[in-house]
Amino acid sequence: MINVAVLGYGTVGSGVVEVIESNKELISKRAGEQIEVKYILDLRDFPGDPYESKLVHDVNVIMEDDSVAIVCEVMGGVGAAYQFTKMALNKGKSVCTSNKELVAKYGPELLGIAKEKGCNYLFEASVGGGIPIIRPLNSALTAEKVEKITGILNGTTNYILSKMEKEGADFEDVLKEAQEKGYAERNPEADVEGHDACRKISILSSLMLGKTVNSEKVYTEGITKITAADFVYAKAMGRSIKLLGVSRSKGEENLVMVAPFMISAENPLYMVNDVFNAILVKGNMLGNSMYYGKGAGKLPTASAVVGDVVDCARNQGRTIPCLWDAKEAVLADVDEVERRFFVRVKPEGLEAVMAAFPGGEQVDAGRSKDAGYVTPSLKEKDFAAKAELLGDALLGKIRLGD
Amino acid sequence: MINVAVLGYGTVGSGVVEVIESNKELISKRAGEQIEVKYILDLRDFPGDPYESKLVHDVNVIMEDDSVAIVCEVMGGVGAAYQFTKMALNKGKSVCTSNKELVAKYGPELLGIAKEKGCNYLFEASVGGGIPIIRPLNSALTAEKVEKITGILNGTTNYILSKMEKEGADFEDVLKEAQEKGYAERNPEADVEGHDACRKISILSSLMLGKTVNSEKVYTEGITKITAADFVYAKAMGRSIKLLGVSRSKGEENLVMVAPFMISAENPLYMVNDVFNAILVKGNMLGNSMYYGKGAGKLPTASAVVGDVVDCARNQGRTIPCLWDAKEAVLADVDEVERRFFVRVKPEGLEAVMAAFPGGEQVDAGRSKDAGYVTPSLKEKDFAAKAELLGDALLGKIRLGD
Repeated sequence: MINVAVLGYGTVGSGVVEVIESNKELISKRAGEQIEVKYILDLRDFPGDPYESKLVHDVNVIMEDDSVAIVCEVMGGVGAAYQFTKMALNKGKSVCTSNKELVAKYGPELLGIAKEKGCNYLFEASVGGGIPIIRPLNSALTAEKVEKITGILNGTTNYILSKMEKEGADFEDVLKEAQEKGYAERNPEADVEGHDACRKISILSSLMLGKTVNSEKVYTEGITKITAADFVYAKAMGRSIKLLGVSRSKGEENLVMVAPFMISAENPLYMVNDVFNAILVKGNMLGNSMYYGKGAGKLPTASAVVGDVVDCARNQGRTIPCLWDAKEAVLADVDEVERRFFVRVKPEGLEAVMAAFPGGEQVDAGRSKDAGYVTPSLKEKDFAAKAELLGDALLGKIRLGD
Repeated sequence: MINVAVLGYGTVGSGVVEVIESNKELISKRAGEQIEVKYILDLRDFPGDPYESKLVHDVNVIMEDDSVAIVCEVMGGVGAAYQFTKMALNKGKSVCTSNKELVAKYGPELLGIAKEKGCNYLFEASVGGGIPIIRPLNSALTAEKVEKITGILNGTTNYILSKMEKEGADFEDVLKEAQEKGYAERNPEADVEGHDACRKISILSSLMLGKTVNSEKVYTEGITKITAADFVYAKAMGRSIKLLGVSRSKGEENLVMVAPFMISAENPLYMVNDVFNAILVKGNMLGNSMYYGKGAGKLPTASAVVGDVVDCARNQGRTIPCLWDAKEAVLADVDEVERRFFVRVKPEGLEAVMAAFPGGEQVDAGRSKDAGYVTPSLKEKDFAAKAELLGDALLGKIRLGD
């Protein structure tokens, strides 16, 4: 029998218990041993909860119980979660987590302790919720030089953008509705400003490069400036607008960024709508492969955590290889990247735009309130400098993707 | 250093050598040891080939060389390939293969020998080419009860159907063109009659159920009866036509079949075009996840074989768990399955169809040569019985999918 402790009895934590209890027979068969939840750590009491008897308030009960082999850290944050993870790993207990913030910040250190102690630190649930993406990168695409990863990594923003596209609604209205329905948090900043996607693309980039991508240095732009009008132009161009995490490796330089992009219908990410996530991985032998599914939610996320529990059970006394060095990867300067931009301007500004970015294409979406234009390919910094000269006439800009 | 032998120097075999040589440094780093191709087995000579010196004609050279730890069986067929695989496994050499026919037929036996000998029999490349799907099922979705797998599993037929859809062309014309371009074999039966997809869904179903799905008992229908006219009706219904391998587990009964289906635009498989493959997996906790990429081709397939080589290198002396029992799974009788059907009839037959299947819906595609109708949900056998009565008036029928 393998005893598991769950740290944090919130949404994901209760999901972990539910997944283990619902599929116990199957999971135990796959793990090779009976899997049991022995402790649930939470500061709160849960009177009447069916697992009340497993609740403990003191983490030391778990740490000092040698029969606990696997710990699920689903508390979130980088304070106590970091301490408890280190404690567990140092005791030789494997840790499975959905905590992307912690993985992004301390991944290599925690992986290092796990290796030293012969246990595992697994984090499939930290990116893409229930979509297997960490394992494909670490254990499946091992014959590939991964050259590019492009992902829709945040379900809240994808839901908002899909809804804006479908209903012609504006950002603020859809956000409000999403908050009422519980799809967006009351403080939506981490999602809508792109910080959540930034942590996830940083983790994926680190695994792709084998070095650490510092998420604090990743250029990040959210979706708050996207309007219903932008979608009208996107549609006229046969495109959609998606918040993408992008990571591209070229020689020694690595471009990592998060921003809304206008992507074409040929891009497999084009059809990824609502709360779904998808990650497109380009390898030098395989070409594109894509991983699609529910990127968040109680059970999908918990399923990924429990999948890691099974892997820990199967790999007791053995550390599954994960090539992620603490050394920081060199990031390319986003300003130097060349691409095309869609710009939306006041009708009277169109001439100035065409003069500023000659050789582009006007986009006719049958609107009189504004005009659309796609610039030719130019450096981000050159675009920014010229766009600034347009002043008030510039109503919006979105990068063009593949 | 880990020595690898490649059995068969055809398309995939030369791809395996190319992938190992192209990405040698990365692959060796991930494997934890230098990976070297020591032998290539083929009956033919390849004068002037850069790897000519590694060629051997006698399999015993490989089997008797204890320094060869991993064998890539990429010969195909179930004759010599079966013998050589058993020989290698019995010697404790791990085997990685793209040979779906062999895996479908002898999977559990070969897995059993590998387990007994403490080595591995891995077959990621046997389904979905370079798309990781075996590993997600075996090692990632281990917290899930997988309830349904639906896949576009054959690139040739998907290419043909996509082209028929896009160009309004008929099956025979597109097949001929595909053969000229090398996308379809001169003898296309295995692809267009669904046999290839049948082997692949049988492998996936066996992994899903943990028991053996005998591919010879799987109901299999190909795409040869699909016409350009069917696509006109599909379009009018907002649908596409795809050759699907379907596997559904319900209680003790398992439905496994291969047939063309008309699927709606909401189905994530709808956008999978050309030579791409995709597999949609429905778990009881996660819901749908999808795996998309190139399902065939030299380098994608070879990449999957070499990914398995890395896994074998990482797991020397240890057998990666694979729950696939030799016991045969009970398959449901396809005749008893209830679903809707699209039927295409001569204009004069429409009334008879509406009388035979009351409560369905007529499909208006603006055609005068034939008429389209969608039946209400009914059992396959009841549909077949009534359809037979329509005689010559019935021009075609296609199952409706999700």
